[in-house]
Amino acid sequence: MHIVVLAGGVGGARFLRGVISAAPDAEITAVVNTGDDVTMHGLRICPDLDTVMYTLGNGIDDERGWGRRGETWTVKEELAAYGAEPTWFGLGDRDLATHLVRTRMLDAGYPLSEVTAALAERWRPGVRLLPMSDQRVETHVVVADPDTGRQRAIHFQEWWVRHRAALDARAFVQVGVDDARPAPGVVEAIGTADAVLFAPSNPVVSIGTVLGVPGVRDALRGAAGRVVGISPIVGGDVVRGMADRCLPVVGVEVSAEGVGRHYGGRREGGLLDAWLVHTGDAATVPGADVHTVPLLMSSPAATRAMARAALDAAGA
Amino acid sequence: MHIVVLAGGVGGARFLRGVISAAPDAEITAVVNTGDDVTMHGLRICPDLDTVMYTLGNGIDDERGWGRRGETWTVKEELAAYGAEPTWFGLGDRDLATHLVRTRMLDAGYPLSEVTAALAERWRPGVRLLPMSDQRVETHVVVADPDTGRQRAIHFQEWWVRHRAALDARAFVQVGVDDARPAPGVVEAIGTADAVLFAPSNPVVSIGTVLGVPGVRDALRGAAGRVVGISPIVGGDVVRGMADRCLPVVGVEVSAEGVGRHYGGRREGGLLDAWLVHTGDAATVPGADVHTVPLLMSSPAATRAMARAALDAAGA
Repeated sequence: MHIVVLAGGVGGARFLRGVISAAPDAEITAVVNTGDDVTMHGLRICPDLDTVMYTLGNGIDDERGWGRRGETWTVKEELAAYGAEPTWFGLGDRDLATHLVRTRMLDAGYPLSEVTAALAERWRPGVRLLPMSDQRVETHVVVADPDTGRQRAIHFQEWWVRHRAALDARAFVQVGVDDARPAPGVVEAIGTADAVLFAPSNPVVSIGTVLGVPGVRDALRGAAGRVVGISPIVGGDVVRGMADRCLPVVGVEVSAEGVGRHYGGRREGGLLDAWLVHTGDAATVPGADVHTVPLLMSSPAATRAMARAALDAAGA
Repeated sequence: MHIVVLAGGVGGARFLRGVISAAPDAEITAVVNTGDDVTMHGLRICPDLDTVMYTLGNGIDDERGWGRRGETWTVKEELAAYGAEPTWFGLGDRDLATHLVRTRMLDAGYPLSEVTAALAERWRPGVRLLPMSDQRVETHVVVADPDTGRQRAIHFQEWWVRHRAALDARAFVQVGVDDARPAPGVVEAIGTADAVLFAPSNPVVSIGTVLGVPGVRDALRGAAGRVVGISPIVGGDVVRGMADRCLPVVGVEVSAEGVGRHYGGRREGGLLDAWLVHTGDAATVPGADVHTVPLLMSSPAATRAMARAALDAAGA
């Protein structure tokens, strides 16, 4: 059995742990958002790819959900002592080695997908880890200056990490997306998998960014297997992250139904064959089956059951 | 009073501390060897500049003589876990931040002299810190393969750090020296200073490398002030470092007299007005005065007295 999972960072990584646990013999391909990627201090940083790699490779700081266990922050402190900007980004010493290796390989001309495979040789995440694209696609956020009202675009990381998504977003822009192509293997994996799952990641800046890469939506519409999404909205609220700050910007209601309709039912020209919402939530998504199951990843067993439910909904 | 000191790393930095102590009101310019510079893991590393900067800025690990006090080695360990070469170079976490800032500024087009000035704003070394050149000049060592006898050139750092100078050197080559010019301010400083001192640094791969930059020897020959050298050889042996491995390669006897004659007396077309040798050593250097004074930098007071002796010999 071959399962494809579209994923962002922390939530996507945890969901993938559940999928591995629920289908230990399956071949699993993770197609990961790279719209959060950023270059800082000359280092190429891929937060979602690293979160998935560290989580599945047993190197993650489980408490924090991102970054390396046993992390230290010496380089970051020293950079601040030099006055080197930005100082607000959480650049750990252990993590930094990953960025150094990645940056050198990219500078040497290797595409991100090959760099990711090389890094994964150390971590052995147990899934095939694919960036959504080898081309740079970076999410920027159009915000209005609180004082002057003038609009400007800032990198997603600046909005997310520095401003904690507190600045009102007017729009999300995928810089570079017009020239992007799905990374090698992405379209084929989606097209031929027995099941394609949307992790309960941010529907706008994680899954939405993957879907924005030209060719991905077409691949999903032509997928041989069933496409199943898991709602990141539970009881009208986000389980984690700041999807509630993102959905209104693209005109989507912060509800399980709102997100399901945003993806759309496949029988009506959308993407989903099935949509999973949390026990107690209700949703109607034209063109898709809706299943109601527990969606809280509160323990390995709960996460595994949730992944199992998604695979069941896919008939896999 | 303006004093210029030509210097390498550890010995040069300690000698500079003595000069500052001996002449606290003087303007001091350090012209530092950059032939040891190397790019590793994509980072531009300038060992001698950093050793001088950290030493005079009170950030050095005094025990080790190089690198930062309180250093940690997390990034190095992580790079090794990825199998990223080289693993033999002592790349500390604190130190790494310096290299990151430097690399970014160089990549942005700033010359090394301006980068060095920017880094020195943090460290306030109390001297004007100049690289010998803004162009890349890297010392390579021609060695013979112990098995095949075939010659090959390896970077100085590989010979020095990895092989602890144990491979027989056939020659030292200054890669890039033909296109190098003295960094802005070097020629003027040498030409107009009240005294020019050669620190007791390695005469071949530190001072010798500075002297190899086209224009430096001419500046010394035309210097308005006296030029005074301090012997790094005491009692026929090196005080620290591996000059005894380097001098024979360029046909120079490992003795105070051998090094003095290698630099040459200024009245005979060489570089030195005066040559300082250690108590108990004897030397004749045609065209230069020879002074016999204690040359062991065994304490701040001893180092200060040695610097004072050098300034006296310069008439400054």
